[in-house]
Amino acid sequence: MLNRHVRLARRPAGKLTAADLELAEAPIPEPGPGEILVRNTWLSIDPSIRIRLAATTPNGYLPPLRPGDELSGLALGTVLESRSPEFAAGDLVSHTLGYREYALLGTRAQTIGGYGAPARVDAGALPPRWFLGPLGSAGLTAYAGLSEILELNPADTLWVSSAAGAVGSLAAQLAKIRGATVIGSAGSPEKVAFLRDELGVPAFDYHAGSLSESLAALAPGGIDTYFDNVGGDHLTAALDALRPAGRIALCGAVSGYDGAAPAGPPNLFTMVSKGLRMRGFRAGSFTHLEERMRKEVAGYLADGRLIHRETIFDGIEAASTALLAMLSGATTGKTLCRLDF
Amino acid sequence: MLNRHVRLARRPAGKLTAADLELAEAPIPEPGPGEILVRNTWLSIDPSIRIRLAATTPNGYLPPLRPGDELSGLALGTVLESRSPEFAAGDLVSHTLGYREYALLGTRAQTIGGYGAPARVDAGALPPRWFLGPLGSAGLTAYAGLSEILELNPADTLWVSSAAGAVGSLAAQLAKIRGATVIGSAGSPEKVAFLRDELGVPAFDYHAGSLSESLAALAPGGIDTYFDNVGGDHLTAALDALRPAGRIALCGAVSGYDGAAPAGPPNLFTMVSKGLRMRGFRAGSFTHLEERMRKEVAGYLADGRLIHRETIFDGIEAASTALLAMLSGATTGKTLCRLDF
Repeated sequence: MLNRHVRLARRPAGKLTAADLELAEAPIPEPGPGEILVRNTWLSIDPSIRIRLAATTPNGYLPPLRPGDELSGLALGTVLESRSPEFAAGDLVSHTLGYREYALLGTRAQTIGGYGAPARVDAGALPPRWFLGPLGSAGLTAYAGLSEILELNPADTLWVSSAAGAVGSLAAQLAKIRGATVIGSAGSPEKVAFLRDELGVPAFDYHAGSLSESLAALAPGGIDTYFDNVGGDHLTAALDALRPAGRIALCGAVSGYDGAAPAGPPNLFTMVSKGLRMRGFRAGSFTHLEERMRKEVAGYLADGRLIHRETIFDGIEAASTALLAMLSGATTGKTLCRLDF
Repeated sequence: MLNRHVRLARRPAGKLTAADLELAEAPIPEPGPGEILVRNTWLSIDPSIRIRLAATTPNGYLPPLRPGDELSGLALGTVLESRSPEFAAGDLVSHTLGYREYALLGTRAQTIGGYGAPARVDAGALPPRWFLGPLGSAGLTAYAGLSEILELNPADTLWVSSAAGAVGSLAAQLAKIRGATVIGSAGSPEKVAFLRDELGVPAFDYHAGSLSESLAALAPGGIDTYFDNVGGDHLTAALDALRPAGRIALCGAVSGYDGAAPAGPPNLFTMVSKGLRMRGFRAGSFTHLEERMRKEVAGYLADGRLIHRETIFDGIEAASTALLAMLSGATTGKTLCRLDF
């Protein structure tokens, strides 16, 4: 038995392609004192790993991966062997060493967006994979973005970009539950139909015309708040559409991940002219809210008020396909790779 | 007697030049019911008027002036004739119709940055012109920027750009008085000397080398807060230098006023990676703090803790020269044009 994993074959020149990643094998590692060996069962496929495939990463971010390095990402697995007093064989744990079948984890595990050391997950009767999605970092990102960053209130009109994605679809629905007026944008007619018909969120396809005109059609009086997963031209359009004293939560900037990052918005001065606020954040800064979020979101999932869509790929062989599919906009909701099938 | 005023002769192509402005004459207007006629004594020369000389203005801002239109700006004057029950001849008033010798003001006067209708000024024993500077909009901008926008605390390291300017020099000094560690930047060795030697603020000349290296030399551990009067490359450097959870007050973007506005910062994603906050503002949103600010700042001016530098031009003929000098960086502190000499 070997430990199959996805590694960076070469640094992508522009858009990520299949040839930039490769499936490789290595011996299954042996846990040393204080370490645990985990058999991964679910891999979270998130756009942010793309940032680390470039030659440089933004100030304050994790360093770039080098060709030959294993990719990393949030994952869920079962402890096979424990040499740590904190874990026992059979424990379900979440951690940051995804994109591989077996993970060796210590107390000083790699940190991703504030998520660090492995944590035991008590899934109870719930599907464990939800702890990578609506009850995990995607849920916490949506929850903290609305509550802490935007301080959303029911009188607000909110625009969520990439609203059919893992975080966006949760943010749009949680905002609706809180009474806000929500509009969403996505990258295909199918995603727009999902938002409109399944989630009840008025939405537009950003390929279909001018962002500003599409926004104005759904929110003729402008918007009060913007949950940004895209950056680039979407952020520019939001700055134009925001009413005075509007707020922006900068969560992601996927438009700039896969290829050359766009320049910043040319209309940033509207921050001054309209007295706007913008705040960037990552879920890892809000882990103190995780229990509260889980209780609330689990309730909405149970009573059907929150719909959780997933796109699931099977096997470690499919992990890089999953990433490419997600980056190109081909997946809806939370993208996962299942190893335990 | 005619009313001499500065008007836009033609729309500037790039940098503003003397030929884009002209001194013109018109009859002194007669006040109608509810109106007052004011003889202007001091004109505030502010960079923001440059924004309205372009063909389009940012969303949320005042509309562009057209060739032939009189320039406007904050001003101080004496009521010559009143047909309003609220004012009497001899009253000292502040208002928004500068760049002219006589101003006709009604109750629905033009609004500039939240400053609107004429207001009576009780200068007491203080120089009236201070109510256009440290006790007026410059003071309120610095005060609100530190207290309300940056929520400055004594543990913070603050960078103030354009720190030898009207707002910047007040912000830098007020922050020092509050116990923060302050560094400043300016555009000439003379201004840097003024900051260092007269205000006691460590400073660098942004022409002298890389902004990031200059910042790192004065604040090796990075900065916590940035008071932005410049935008462009300064804002980019601040995003790089800010520590996690840092804050930015966007007050002005003078680098983009006089000519083509630069693109937004290419490193805006550091807002996400470092969890930064940015908020734009104008003093006009904080007029409820004006009395508190005046009391505090007047105290510092009286006891010598706050140094107020001015660059004064004489006569309406010099108003456009004053504006050109300020935009080119040739003035220090508050730039004023005195008509009452």
